[in-house]
Amino acid sequence: MIPTITAFQTSPDRGRGLARDMRVRWALEEVGQPYDVRLVSFEEMKQPAHRALQPFGQIPTYEEGDLVLFESGAIVLHIAERHGGLLPGDADARARAIAWMFAALNTLEPPIFDRTLAMILERDEPWYEQRLRALEDTIRKRLGDLSSRLGDAEWLDGAFSASDLLMVTVLRRLESSGMLEEDPNLAAYVDRGKARPAYQRAFAAQLAVFEKRDPA
Amino acid sequence: MIPTITAFQTSPDRGRGLARDMRVRWALEEVGQPYDVRLVSFEEMKQPAHRALQPFGQIPTYEEGDLVLFESGAIVLHIAERHGGLLPGDADARARAIAWMFAALNTLEPPIFDRTLAMILERDEPWYEQRLRALEDTIRKRLGDLSSRLGDAEWLDGAFSASDLLMVTVLRRLESSGMLEEDPNLAAYVDRGKARPAYQRAFAAQLAVFEKRDPA
Repeated sequence: MIPTITAFQTSPDRGRGLARDMRVRWALEEVGQPYDVRLVSFEEMKQPAHRALQPFGQIPTYEEGDLVLFESGAIVLHIAERHGGLLPGDADARARAIAWMFAALNTLEPPIFDRTLAMILERDEPWYEQRLRALEDTIRKRLGDLSSRLGDAEWLDGAFSASDLLMVTVLRRLESSGMLEEDPNLAAYVDRGKARPAYQRAFAAQLAVFEKRDPA
Repeated sequence: MIPTITAFQTSPDRGRGLARDMRVRWALEEVGQPYDVRLVSFEEMKQPAHRALQPFGQIPTYEEGDLVLFESGAIVLHIAERHGGLLPGDADARARAIAWMFAALNTLEPPIFDRTLAMILERDEPWYEQRLRALEDTIRKRLGDLSSRLGDAEWLDGAFSASDLLMVTVLRRLESSGMLEEDPNLAAYVDRGKARPAYQRAFAAQLAVFEKRDPA
């Protein structure tokens, strides 16, 4: 059965792959699972029909027969459990990969996403520079810890897994900040993720939505 | 094999059950799994020995033979997968419960935890009042969505699961804010969680650590 996901009709990132449907598209591409996409407007996201799928009025959602899921991390984990290739077969290694999935979304993403939000919403506030510095201090600490653990390994724990997929999408949000370059092994790690054919197909698919709607 | 978890030697919340080891203790109590606890000081948390278990120098960790895990969400999921009672048997219901686990930690917890942090770290900053208001607006929106979805159900999706366990621990951080009382079904939901015998055993165990160290 071909699953259907939802994505922004008009992505706030202009198709740069930062919207959270990118994670789900990438996971589906990694496992070779075709999918349909239903685009939703900001207006539609807040309506009861969409909230029945996503209680918080966000994207992405995932529909597969009677199953409806939300939360990009949970959808990626579901895809990884139903198909081979995104989680190790060994039980302990699988549990560790899932720990890194949670780390990507709970330890790295919150301050990184807060920084993006502050740059959008607080730029004109008198405290903006100070707040940005505080957020970037937190982010640098987390990046330093992550960089130490990664060392010169290719991926977080053995072979590429759903945890690397999530972590790369989280770190990509820092691409224009210069912060990734302070830890060259992290910059190289993100580049390795982006070099994967599945990443590139997913990126092209979400960019096509934007370009079709808003031709250059 | 009896797992060992780590917890704060001196909990910043003075044993009120807000430290993240509470989630792991509660899960272990729900499934009837005995466990050992190793207390770590703030100093020890930043040392290489602890960072080998937890790359970001935090608690809790979970050791079970050769397996080492971190991230409270991942540990709770691991416990739920190894034992009965914390996840539904039906595959679709299980996937939905996991989606709510991610929602608790990724959609609800970030603004709720940010509010706690702001109240500790930013109280003297010029932006404090405005930032607190902005965070509380975000939190209220999420609570409203959660309250609508919960309705008058007892738990998030069918029987009590690991998702309710995580969601209740996240919402508890709002107990002194008055915000839970604005959605009485959420306040009652949190109370139902706290009334569970396994919750109470876990709460007593972590409070005992604090009281032993710092007798009233």
